[in-house]
Amino acid sequence: MNSLLSESQRERIEAVLVSPRNPLNIGAAARAMANFGFARLAVVAPYERHWREAKSAVGASDLLQNARITESIADAVADCTLVVGTGSLEHRKPEQPVIPLPELAPRVRQEIARGGRVAIVFGSEKRGLTQEDLAHCHVLAVIPTDPGQPSMNLGQAVSVCLYEIASRIDEKAAPDVKRGQASDAAVPASTRDLELLAGVVDETMLAANYSPALMRNANRHDVHLLLRRLALTKRDAERILGLFRRILWRLR
Amino acid sequence: MNSLLSESQRERIEAVLVSPRNPLNIGAAARAMANFGFARLAVVAPYERHWREAKSAVGASDLLQNARITESIADAVADCTLVVGTGSLEHRKPEQPVIPLPELAPRVRQEIARGGRVAIVFGSEKRGLTQEDLAHCHVLAVIPTDPGQPSMNLGQAVSVCLYEIASRIDEKAAPDVKRGQASDAAVPASTRDLELLAGVVDETMLAANYSPALMRNANRHDVHLLLRRLALTKRDAERILGLFRRILWRLR
Repeated sequence: MNSLLSESQRERIEAVLVSPRNPLNIGAAARAMANFGFARLAVVAPYERHWREAKSAVGASDLLQNARITESIADAVADCTLVVGTGSLEHRKPEQPVIPLPELAPRVRQEIARGGRVAIVFGSEKRGLTQEDLAHCHVLAVIPTDPGQPSMNLGQAVSVCLYEIASRIDEKAAPDVKRGQASDAAVPASTRDLELLAGVVDETMLAANYSPALMRNANRHDVHLLLRRLALTKRDAERILGLFRRILWRLR
Repeated sequence: MNSLLSESQRERIEAVLVSPRNPLNIGAAARAMANFGFARLAVVAPYERHWREAKSAVGASDLLQNARITESIADAVADCTLVVGTGSLEHRKPEQPVIPLPELAPRVRQEIARGGRVAIVFGSEKRGLTQEDLAHCHVLAVIPTDPGQPSMNLGQAVSVCLYEIASRIDEKAAPDVKRGQASDAAVPASTRDLELLAGVVDETMLAANYSPALMRNANRHDVHLLLRRLALTKRDAERILGLFRRILWRLR
């Protein structure tokens, strides 16, 4: 009845809370993580200072003490190769591929099997994830809430998502995933790799006069989304980066 | 993305909270019910009086106002044909049949299909369901929590259980990842599109002196493979082509 993921697999999954307002909700999220055997938490720009002492973190005070705090979502997910935003579809027309939460687990396991790291990202209590937050995500996992009352409590949303990832029984009884890295060629690009590449592509677009000033932000945003959608390997990202650096050097 | 149960089916499912201590948890449970489209709540012998005003019942104050209050669990489940207790297996040797939560949904649907009524019963915050409470249950649905931290927050337990019942997709249905964009944006690039793009990238690599003569064929081959692996849409291919044409024009 335990998690279907091994401890070392769960170590490669991180929960990220973006700008949580209420420390009690951070504690509740930590408790839910402990319930489903997850230990890695990052808190991005929390509103209150003293969240590490939240009493709601029943059985999860160590987890809270060890949580990373970062200034931006980009920092929080820098090492991750699959960044999953969470939310409902109400009032939203996402630019990312959408995956219903009940179908997320195989995607997460696949990423871990190929040596990746996964972030599950939760927005703040009031607004959920903004369009800007979502630009860091490869996919949006949609919690199938009722259109009449789509907005979930933060701790409950964390609980439902981690339950799904930890407990979903694999229909196809996937072969046991072995430890160690996937073959070198298949290692996915990290968010850091993609950011670096996006930066150089942006400069190239500028140097080539492809992006007039007025369009620069829109183009940068599109490149950002595109790179996340393409599921580049680390090697792909390096090669493309090499090409664009060369181009940039020549253009200048 | 809505519930797989119709409204009239969900009307035949009731959540039962046994001796909840904290009104905020009752409110949180009500909110979770509303999130997954359930409306029928029974509260058995609550510790505090003023639970109907719990502020945590965001979007669920009507539900809380209309909740039944009963003195005993027997009263609460009197009309039900399937009574499902919930909990973990720690410190417990249940006398009832045990069913893992991820396998509960088909059992609940079956009961409803044959005209039954279902109660999902949650114990109090401290102890969960007692042996005596469980005596009213037909089955015990076990939430697969981590042995190191099995005890869930009440609102989170309600959330996870109702998510499971409302959302579990039929295992035989193939996963279907949808794109967030309009349908024409999802049209895949044709081989012709990719060939055209590969040609311009090849010329760019040459013009930028990225490909020395000796490496040109190998690089061309790699680009060829890469473009096919990336599952570009037609629109992606057009945009990238536009960028490379611009670069090429500048380089020359």
